[in-house]
Amino acid sequence: MAARYDTVSFLSDYGTADEFVGVVKSVLRSLAPHAAVIDITHEIPPHDVRAGGLCLARACQYLTAGVVLAVVDPGVGTARRALAVEVGGGESVLVGPDNGLLAPAVALVGGATRAVLLTNPDLRLPAAGATFDGRDLFAPAAAHLCNGIPLGDLGEDIDPALLRPGVMPLTRVEGGAVVAEALWVDRFGNVQLNVDPAEVAEFGPRIGVEWGEQSRTGTLAVAYGELSAGEVGLVVDSYGLLSIALDRRSAAEELGLGPGSQVTLRALADDPLVDVAPPVPITLRARTSPSGAG
Amino acid sequence: MAARYDTVSFLSDYGTADEFVGVVKSVLRSLAPHAAVIDITHEIPPHDVRAGGLCLARACQYLTAGVVLAVVDPGVGTARRALAVEVGGGESVLVGPDNGLLAPAVALVGGATRAVLLTNPDLRLPAAGATFDGRDLFAPAAAHLCNGIPLGDLGEDIDPALLRPGVMPLTRVEGGAVVAEALWVDRFGNVQLNVDPAEVAEFGPRIGVEWGEQSRTGTLAVAYGELSAGEVGLVVDSYGLLSIALDRRSAAEELGLGPGSQVTLRALADDPLVDVAPPVPITLRARTSPSGAG
Amino acid sequence: MAARYDTVSFLSDYGTADEFVGVVKSVLRSLAPHAAVIDITHEIPPHDVRAGGLCLARACQYLTAGVVLAVVDPGVGTARRALAVEVGGGESVLVGPDNGLLAPAVALVGGATRAVLLTNPDLRLPAAGATFDGRDLFAPAAAHLCNGIPLGDLGEDIDPALLRPGVMPLTRVEGGAVVAEALWVDRFGNVQLNVDPAEVAEFGPRIGVEWGEQSRTGTLAVAYGELSAGEVGLVVDSYGLLSIALDRRSAAEELGLGPGSQVTLRALADDPLVDVAPPVPITLRARTSPSGAG
Repeated sequence: MAARYDTVSFLSDYGTADEFVGVVKSVLRSLAPHAAVIDITHEIPPHDVRAGGLCLARACQYLTAGVVLAVVDPGVGTARRALAVEVGGGESVLVGPDNGLLAPAVALVGGATRAVLLTNPDLRLPAAGATFDGRDLFAPAAAHLCNGIPLGDLGEDIDPALLRPGVMPLTRVEGGAVVAEALWVDRFGNVQLNVDPAEVAEFGPRIGVEWGEQSRTGTLAVAYGELSAGEVGLVVDSYGLLSIALDRRSAAEELGLGPGSQVTLRALADDPLVDVAPPVPITLRARTSPSGAG
Repeated sequence: MAARYDTVSFLSDYGTADEFVGVVKSVLRSLAPHAAVIDITHEIPPHDVRAGGLCLARACQYLTAGVVLAVVDPGVGTARRALAVEVGGGESVLVGPDNGLLAPAVALVGGATRAVLLTNPDLRLPAAGATFDGRDLFAPAAAHLCNGIPLGDLGEDIDPALLRPGVMPLTRVEGGAVVAEALWVDRFGNVQLNVDPAEVAEFGPRIGVEWGEQSRTGTLAVAYGELSAGEVGLVVDSYGLLSIALDRRSAAEELGLGPGSQVTLRALADDPLVDVAPPVPITLRARTSPSGAG
Repeated sequence: MAARYDTVSFLSDYGTADEFVGVVKSVLRSLAPHAAVIDITHEIPPHDVRAGGLCLARACQYLTAGVVLAVVDPGVGTARRALAVEVGGGESVLVGPDNGLLAPAVALVGGATRAVLLTNPDLRLPAAGATFDGRDLFAPAAAHLCNGIPLGDLGEDIDPALLRPGVMPLTRVEGGAVVAEALWVDRFGNVQLNVDPAEVAEFGPRIGVEWGEQSRTGTLAVAYGELSAGEVGLVVDSYGLLSIALDRRSAAEELGLGPGSQVTLRALADDPLVDVAPPVPITLRARTSPSGAG
């Protein structure tokens, strides 16, 4: 059997304080010693399928062709299904639980071209307990795929349309404003919104940012270093989405934002010198298009 | 000299905030560039030989054949001995300090077939200080072993029976109850006990769990996801030991348990509907066998 | 084109909770699949160029020959320059921003033999935003160097003397005492000073240690394990610098020291039994040489 893939990209919520990640890599190494493993991250918050799915979606377009092993799996040991999902006609295969974790990445790279359930009992490691499918089920499947096993040997085919979908929140427009959601806070405290810059392109270079009981004026910027002290930046981040940022400080911490926070972006009234822009629904209601208000 | 091992499995208490792990890997790469390194973990609490030994014991049966480099070494620079311990007749060699860190893993894989002290001064890196044997002593030994150096070239033989033993607490039975100890809390807050499920097999599916001043009824379960909200689970974990778990929450945090906590498992009185099982020594004293009480 | 380097040593302030490190490694793997990546650390405090530069300086003499990729880059997206710095006549090349991060390591390994700016637009990955040069600019440059691209293909030459210098604080002598600075606190709480042991060689085995409003007597020791409980040790650390240490406890935490703390080392007065040595300027002023006071 000729080796087919030589890279396993690995994401989990295992953390690195325990031996979980090392044990999974040891299983991969023992079964498919030619394959290199690249850690995407293992610090997805425990059981947070949504955060894991978003992280995988951010990373996926950069991953090396090969096997993607993703395990955030609160339902381990229960009847939830285990999957291998082929994308790009076999360029890569994603392996993990069928709980929505893989779905956003699969969608972003063009959808599944085939999917199978990991039901072949011969490929599972014998184990004392049923709580570590990363080691006993998913890693062996990933290793066998690296070794060139046909996808169908892992288990029966399933219609990719029946995979559990992921959740990707969409913005909505209310009174000319864009009601968005914070997807992710990165290590530097930048708050990624689910907003394509095109959605606010006509709001001008200064935009009202509202969340909870607060509102501030945000400044569009290309780099964090362009922001002056205290200025709230709206920066197109490295994935092409709008993010709320401060220069060298954590926007999430200082502004009290986190994943799931609702944030409204609103064209400012004519006076660009007003630093704090309270919602002015009357002004906005009068606008007939989202343009020209900045 | 023909390369003998191509994998180094590496465990330490170095953490990853400093460059310690990277420097050790650089030494390995420079001396034995063909060898791959698999991190077991580097987040053993500083100087916690017991935790490191238990982690290595959990991982060892899954590690790839090769060299195991383990460094939790509060006595670095003192007269404590440094070792290479061969197991499986040379299938693997464990390298580390002689402070009990290696002992549980060595015992679990069948005992040492040979051991040598790392006393050959020519194999030690010259260094300014005496505080980083991971870099200066253990990594070079591991690399030379990968390269095929005979074990005896590292230093003189020592009788494996003279190695410092590790500590592996045993359960005891008191009045029909199993008095256990928490070995480990994993990232998800599951509390591993030093209890083989067979020890409580006759207690039935619901078992009294007592610690400190508290007691609860635990339910045997195969998967965390089988537990209802608030239910205390007794789950056979992925290493085959009994663990105390909650569904998607930290049992350690909510129940106030940690490594070293004493936990008593007790067959419940006849009424399985009693949710909280206070210790009832009279009832238990009357039992002539541990069976039938659940 | 023949591969030139097969190892990339990678340091950053990206942390490991996000996918940043994994994405950079994926870019490296896709462009230069033969190259192995060794993580020095990714937990440099966000934007802390000084801490990153000191960490790289500590590690550099142990790094495998090859490419060093170092990214602590608060100015990403601004006009700050990006560099590849050749050292050892091509034995290694350091890649990163021109903000002083690379300078201490470059100096320690003998200085730059050549430097170029990373201005070739064809080698940059296309990207939606300008905030992730580790992925879009530095990783591709590192990968191309591994693949054997001539240094000059990355961009125009720059005089290495014009690179932004790093900051490496020097000690000063005041009244016979050595006024030092804490450079680094490691995971174990040991506090590295910018002091060569030779600077205090004539102070004797017990030395006055003063910081803030406090003073203690420090004992020179070779190993942490030589220190008795409560004793403040002055240990030559693994990089050959003097560090303040306690046995199995954090000196930084217990003594209130951190990076940047000023610490004065002073020869003690004649009575070596005085455990606490308040500054005695008159005595010291009377000394004609730093010797003989301990």
